[in-house]
Amino acid sequence: MIIMGIDPGFAITGYGVVKYEGNKFSVLDYSAITTGASMKFSDRLLVLYNELEKLIDKYKPDAISIEELFFNKNIKTALTVGHGRGVAVLAAAKSGIDIFEYTPLQVKQSVVGYGRAEKAQIQQMVKAILNLPAIPKPDDVADALAVAICHGNSHRMGTLLGNGRF
Amino acid sequence: MIIMGIDPGFAITGYGVVKYEGNKFSVLDYSAITTGASMKFSDRLLVLYNELEKLIDKYKPDAISIEELFFNKNIKTALTVGHGRGVAVLAAAKSGIDIFEYTPLQVKQSVVGYGRAEKAQIQQMVKAILNLPAIPKPDDVADALAVAICHGNSHRMGTLLGNGRF
Repeated sequence: MIIMGIDPGFAITGYGVVKYEGNKFSVLDYSAITTGASMKFSDRLLVLYNELEKLIDKYKPDAISIEELFFNKNIKTALTVGHGRGVAVLAAAKSGIDIFEYTPLQVKQSVVGYGRAEKAQIQQMVKAILNLPAIPKPDDVADALAVAICHGNSHRMGTLLGNGRF
Repeated sequence: MIIMGIDPGFAITGYGVVKYEGNKFSVLDYSAITTGASMKFSDRLLVLYNELEKLIDKYKPDAISIEELFFNKNIKTALTVGHGRGVAVLAAAKSGIDIFEYTPLQVKQSVVGYGRAEKAQIQQMVKAILNLPAIPKPDDVADALAVAICHGNSHRMGTLLGNGRF
């Protein structure tokens, strides 16, 4: 199966497309969609949507795995990032592909086997699992690959039913 | 000119379509797009997007006027409402129609002439300006009509250039 992982954001949205076959992961694509502050707010959302639409159309993933967001301080940031995540979820929903949502805790447990894993540990595991030459940058890209791996593992573990689905 | 006003939200998004000609407003349509909690989160965004797309296609507004949101407490609410507003802005951006954004203060000043106006005063003015039989319900619908009127006034006042545009 092909899984597209998304680490949603506003200025930066990480994505990673992986293939999961015979209990093995391989990577098809990974990068970030970024928009600059010089662009109109609405155009930034439009670029994000169009780029995600293109990627979904290109790779035709069987599942889209998207990270759930938590904030503990800045309301303005939460509102802005919500705009970006809303557009990412919409792009996925428009495609008709099943969408799965995982919390950062679920991603850590799935990728490192430990819910309190450090960011560096997750990134090392992503690099190892996907046999990458280096840790993908920026962090949003590694996070997107991690949430894609999380869904693959979740699928294998048979915990798919209802779990993380939204 | 035809102006579509949007009061963005997640469960409820108010909209109002007004015609502004010869310094007079008339109303073409107003209601709310609502989605229930029993629906999947992603489907709720999809319904919101599709309904807005249909309305934009039907009325072909010259401008889309959308309220800016402020929150002062709940981060989770801000994040969720951000999803809805992001999808609304995207629907507008996709259509290629100019988008204008106004703060609640700008809307009050424009509609009532007083930035600290109460909600009831704005609703009474919306009813009077558009010659409606009653105050539109829920509040989101009256708010959407108010932000549409705000853009019409702003246009007349010649404060259009750059002002409130995003």
